[in-house]
Amino acid sequence: MFKNALISCSDKKGLAEFLKKFPNLRIVSTGGTAAYLRKNHIPVVEVSEQTGFPEVMDGRVRTLHPNIHMALLAREENSHDMEVLKKHDLEKFDLVIGNLYPFEEQSKSKMSDRELSEFIDIGGVALLRAAAKNYQQITVICDSDDYDWVGDEAEVSLEKRKYLAGKVFAHISSYDSLIAKKLLGFPLQQKEISFGAKLVQPLRYGENPHQDANWLKLVGEEFGIHNAKVLSGKPLSYNNILDIDAAAILGKEFTEAVCVAVKHNNPCGVGADQDAKIAVKKCLEADPISVFGGIVVCNRPIDMGEADLLCPIFLECIVAPEFSPKAFQKLSQKKNLRLLEWNTFEKEHLYEIRSISGGILMQTCDKADREWGPTWICHGTAPDAEKKQELLFAWKVCTALKSNSIALTSERQTVGLGMGQVNRVDAVDHAIGRWKKNHPDKNDVVMASDAFFPFADSVAAAAKAGIRWIIQPGGSIKDEEVLMAAHHHGVNMILTHKRHFRH
Amino acid sequence: MFKNALISCSDKKGLAEFLKKFPNLRIVSTGGTAAYLRKNHIPVVEVSEQTGFPEVMDGRVRTLHPNIHMALLAREENSHDMEVLKKHDLEKFDLVIGNLYPFEEQSKSKMSDRELSEFIDIGGVALLRAAAKNYQQITVICDSDDYDWVGDEAEVSLEKRKYLAGKVFAHISSYDSLIAKKLLGFPLQQKEISFGAKLVQPLRYGENPHQDANWLKLVGEEFGIHNAKVLSGKPLSYNNILDIDAAAILGKEFTEAVCVAVKHNNPCGVGADQDAKIAVKKCLEADPISVFGGIVVCNRPIDMGEADLLCPIFLECIVAPEFSPKAFQKLSQKKNLRLLEWNTFEKEHLYEIRSISGGILMQTCDKADREWGPTWICHGTAPDAEKKQELLFAWKVCTALKSNSIALTSERQTVGLGMGQVNRVDAVDHAIGRWKKNHPDKNDVVMASDAFFPFADSVAAAAKAGIRWIIQPGGSIKDEEVLMAAHHHGVNMILTHKRHFRH
Repeated sequence: MFKNALISCSDKKGLAEFLKKFPNLRIVSTGGTAAYLRKNHIPVVEVSEQTGFPEVMDGRVRTLHPNIHMALLAREENSHDMEVLKKHDLEKFDLVIGNLYPFEEQSKSKMSDRELSEFIDIGGVALLRAAAKNYQQITVICDSDDYDWVGDEAEVSLEKRKYLAGKVFAHISSYDSLIAKKLLGFPLQQKEISFGAKLVQPLRYGENPHQDANWLKLVGEEFGIHNAKVLSGKPLSYNNILDIDAAAILGKEFTEAVCVAVKHNNPCGVGADQDAKIAVKKCLEADPISVFGGIVVCNRPIDMGEADLLCPIFLECIVAPEFSPKAFQKLSQKKNLRLLEWNTFEKEHLYEIRSISGGILMQTCDKADREWGPTWICHGTAPDAEKKQELLFAWKVCTALKSNSIALTSERQTVGLGMGQVNRVDAVDHAIGRWKKNHPDKNDVVMASDAFFPFADSVAAAAKAGIRWIIQPGGSIKDEEVLMAAHHHGVNMILTHKRHFRH
Repeated sequence: MFKNALISCSDKKGLAEFLKKFPNLRIVSTGGTAAYLRKNHIPVVEVSEQTGFPEVMDGRVRTLHPNIHMALLAREENSHDMEVLKKHDLEKFDLVIGNLYPFEEQSKSKMSDRELSEFIDIGGVALLRAAAKNYQQITVICDSDDYDWVGDEAEVSLEKRKYLAGKVFAHISSYDSLIAKKLLGFPLQQKEISFGAKLVQPLRYGENPHQDANWLKLVGEEFGIHNAKVLSGKPLSYNNILDIDAAAILGKEFTEAVCVAVKHNNPCGVGADQDAKIAVKKCLEADPISVFGGIVVCNRPIDMGEADLLCPIFLECIVAPEFSPKAFQKLSQKKNLRLLEWNTFEKEHLYEIRSISGGILMQTCDKADREWGPTWICHGTAPDAEKKQELLFAWKVCTALKSNSIALTSERQTVGLGMGQVNRVDAVDHAIGRWKKNHPDKNDVVMASDAFFPFADSVAAAAKAGIRWIIQPGGSIKDEEVLMAAHHHGVNMILTHKRHFRH
């Protein structure tokens, strides 16, 4: 069905097989592609033959010629366009196949700006875009996955040509978004921006079964959950991925062994220790009811000790940098349990985006404070080294909970968490309620609050429950009243001057 | 400092003023731009003079010529490239100014696919991309906002040329993302996708003061919070926007008057009524503590009746389709209160995106059920019309809360909400606790749960508190046990078969 094709491909996979379906096709092609086709016994007209102009500047300029672009852009229904073609002895193209230098692959290797620029495709992009603009009469293929079905069509319908043209613009847009990212670096200052993304996998459904969903990786991001290796169990669900992300946000803040359990995007149990097994035990026992059906992320390899603790509990997912063969053997027998190898430490992420009605919000990522801050002020008794470690642990956990949030911890284990609340005193009440229910024996409990206390009521409630240490940002107009209440109740209060809302 | 410029601009704002700073510049330009420059007494060389080729096909092919692209792509340090230029009697360009047809503006008007295609710029994109690739020696401007500072530089540094080149790729990427969207329609099926976005405004900070943030509108989205008119008060904050979005998600589900208060991305009070004033009153009284410092969205104009209710309460934002002059007069006296005119009904959004580590999740938006579902099954007494309306109200509210969520309502007012919980029975306890605290006098209260009850404990707790009606999706393996418990406690239970998680 096709008569006149223009072909310029960096990736030649499947190209010859596809073209052999069209033995009478006139093919115009560039250097590497032409050589490949000839090797496959497919006759080719060199671009320079059609342009009457030699390829110059190492191929930088070859298809950027009127004799190519007139044959791409001429409108069949426009008699003047057709006359121009005739005058130049040209035939319009009806098939264009092109793909670009693998800029993303190239851009991963260390190279100078100048070298990187060499990989920015100009001519290939121009001819693909011209063909896609003229999809009313041109079938344009930029993805070798489309060869099969296009080759089987008696005639590619206008609807399908439009789809193929759309793919070209989506692909080039994504390609250019990466170039922009490489040139501009951190993109928060831009008036206009574009986020290119490639499908990791379509998801069975979204947050709920009636929602369709896709999981995509952002172009140019080497690190991320898409690097996780699913060793066992079903593919990840939308909610699994969201929960793994929530767990990783907290997990990466620790150098000691840490284990984080997440339910509904909120940590529900966190344990840290020098010994990974103890960290896992602390995590699972933190809130034994809520961990049911959750996901667990650990920053240490899972061996038999950890596996024995994890195995009896119904979990959706366990994520760790490694599973020992024995631990894998044991855990993989649970058919519905997903086991993932992924190192949550990989890399800090720089910014996050989320859509709102008609737009997106973009911000630099929040990070917990990994060390005791030099400007943190303690009102009351100064904490000793051990107490500082405990307060820092509670503080880190608190930053990862949905706001308003309160974290109660003891011996690097969460004993009561309050989160997602619309007022602070309720978060305090919930956290204390969980503590008294799950860990009534724990006495030496510290409290962290992700934002200031607007009133002194929370401090009174904490003191009444037996808390003697609170870490919080401060910054309320009622700080003085809050500090007075703390003093009155014998509570030592650390002010960090840094709020950690998370919604 | 510049010697040889290529200029092709659709938007000519500020161009002549900028160029007058460079009286000795040789300028090569296309039709419309050339005419404009001549009118401004700036000498111009026509592109056709440099190419020796006439503009053809209504300007579709004019700059797509080796004599243009060689002068754009030649590498100064490459002697061969320089020889080629010399041979063709060309000088390299060192300044390129270009901008594209306003495709987004055009694409808003109703036109055929064929007409729309006419607005896809090919030549302009190709020359901008070529110049940007060669930023080592070319200063490329695609945004007239850059004229001022570029004009003031003695010489544009490499770093700044790189920045300008990055802007070109970002702009073109965004431009192409819109074309892809127009051609492909709903983008959930794509292997590769790109989201172009334009700055609405930089935000003072993100969720927390130490986070930088931007608010962007997605290209091609006509509707959204960016259409809201800030009548009074400070600019919106990151958290304001997030909260307005959360409120709008719920508000758009109602045809009767509804008022939604949001704190920390969770509705904290919702009231609906035929009378807007009563809806506002119900909303504000739903949880009088939590509404403090919240945002309120109403789907009816705010007149004095509503303003009198709203005025005494400390709120961050009031959003409504309209404020009467008197209501505005009254409310705008509160200096820190933002008043926004926006119709939350505008349009349904089709999909949402959010970033995770290294990637994004994309899904179709969840929508509440606006009407009583034909497949909803009632176990127990069939609800009458009034009860159905109440259950539907509770159900809608519940879908807008963060999971796990429980909504208790009475007479179209939320009386107790439980949300953001890591187990269901806690959400039930929290909701009941709030009800008994804030509305102990309300007896006829119904309960909605966003997902099934994994155990019968929540039903027992609800019954004990006095609830006789529960609406929930069902689908637990323990449904039978849950329904038995409901029957046992005299609770009527409606199963909707549709879960509404929201995280």
